Amino acid sequence: MRSYRALQYLLCVFCAISPLAAAMMATATTLGGPLTLADEGSFFVNGQSRLSNYPGASLVTGPAPAGNITVNQMYVHYRIPAAGKGIPLVMVHGSNHTGMTYETTPDGREGWATWFVRQGHPVYVVDHSGRGRSGFDPTPVNAVRDGGADPKALPTFFLRPIDRAWWNFRFGPDYPKPFPNLQFPLEAIDQYLAQLVPNAETTLAGGGANTVNALVALLDKIGPAVVMVHSQSGVYGLDVVRKRPNLVRALISVEGGCETVTPADIATPFVKVPFVSVWATTA
Amino acid sequence: MRSYRALQYLLCVFCAISPLAAAMMATATTLGGPLTLADEGSFFVNGQSRLSNYPGASLVTGPAPAGNITVNQMYVHYRIPAAGKGIPLVMVHGSNHTGMTYETTPDGREGWATWFVRQGHPVYVVDHSGRGRSGFDPTPVNAVRDGGADPKALPTFFLRPIDRAWWNFRFGPDYPKPFPNLQFPLEAIDQYLAQLVPNAETTLAGGGANTVNALVALLDKIGPAVVMVHSQSGVYGLDVVRKRPNLVRALISVEGGCETVTPADIATPFVKVPFVSVWATTA
Repeated sequence: MRSYRALQYLLCVFCAISPLAAAMMATATTLGGPLTLADEGSFFVNGQSRLSNYPGASLVTGPAPAGNITVNQMYVHYRIPAAGKGIPLVMVHGSNHTGMTYETTPDGREGWATWFVRQGHPVYVVDHSGRGRSGFDPTPVNAVRDGGADPKALPTFFLRPIDRAWWNFRFGPDYPKPFPNLQFPLEAIDQYLAQLVPNAETTLAGGGANTVNALVALLDKIGPAVVMVHSQSGVYGLDVVRKRPNLVRALISVEGGCETVTPADIATPFVKVPFVSVWATTA
Repeated sequence: MRSYRALQYLLCVFCAISPLAAAMMATATTLGGPLTLADEGSFFVNGQSRLSNYPGASLVTGPAPAGNITVNQMYVHYRIPAAGKGIPLVMVHGSNHTGMTYETTPDGREGWATWFVRQGHPVYVVDHSGRGRSGFDPTPVNAVRDGGADPKALPTFFLRPIDRAWWNFRFGPDYPKPFPNLQFPLEAIDQYLAQLVPNAETTLAGGGANTVNALVALLDKIGPAVVMVHSQSGVYGLDVVRKRPNLVRALISVEGGCETVTPADIATPFVKVPFVSVWATTA
């Protein structure tokens, strides 16, 4: 706390030096209304310490010897509203995305993360294990570079080019042709494409299963919640329901994969867990 | 907006199904006091569209043909307080970190991001270009895997093992021996290590220079601000001052590199831009 106060003092000094600067405020207006938070912050779940024989080289201090790194962790950012008693939501993104996709729309409007908080719901937004702020395991790449391992053993780092994103995410049948009545604001597509990141969970043993395990750990920590999944994470949501039927209050799948659902799943656990699969039309 | 309302309706239904769930609230208490925001959201700056001949393969839909991807973009998350007229701050992390490091301390206390907002300052927290939610360019890795390029051309993906982090970030002289009077709460070191991610900006032509360019683009967008840098980004902060001396109200360097400062820098621009370099003692 003492260091905070020292920095604040410095900032006051700077304000005195440049009084005009204090009047310079950002003019962005993403939020749709007042947001008062009882709590906000971030943490990790599911991290495991593993020996890396190839942790790579700093460009400043040189190569690092083998040692333990943390892998499989999942970044969780949460907001708890000051008012309201809504059920908590966990928001899980899809392929090539991060939790950023729930924050602000590409054209600068409010995303679901803060909208649901403003309606009284605690909201937990995650980055898949191996993606975004959850990091990834650099070892399989560095092993080929620094240790001579077989290049064919490299993980693939998939990142959709615009042509593929165009039809995967259904802007239109073929780039750059849009669907009739497309609702996406195409003038903001550069901001959308900037959201996309490589699927680096391929560096982790188990790949996407780590995100399932991490979501289970999150529910074990925070208690019952509605889980919202998107696209690639649709099947992750199904696995989370199978593993924690008593902690998933409902599963909302936004254009998420359902192909692994079995009659046994429907008999149990989905006889108890409400499941909504939402699909948009393209015409 | 219609889809928001539909989802909120579904959530109300779920609450009715499980009324006890609504009483289940998270109990985390990271914030040090009330936080009321006039605005909050995220966006990207500095993204550029580049042809990738090796965008990798989806594990579901297979390999993607060559096409344009977005690289060099920088993720920016901002909070604007409802009260106060403090000067805006831009917070820039160091090596192996992301903007998460400014959100919550490893032992769950409030980080600088929300603390300064609660004191009336707009705060912009970034992930370096090539790191975290800013993504990276998968092409140099996929080119070796899928195209047979020379493995020696692979970028290094540096991620400090615990032994290296221990002395780099000055927990102590050698792992696991702490410095006398170490203030870091070692019981929370697992949460700290989970923050660390590979320095994947090595996949980008220009490496760290993209973060400098992105910070310049951010200041051009938001106007004058105090820029806070840490460790690796110390030298980035110096470059930002050189490029935009009229937009950096002050540079605060938290254990950041100063080795590139020249007498010419001191004569101009640092005759106008206050510069504080903060170092902790280790004994």
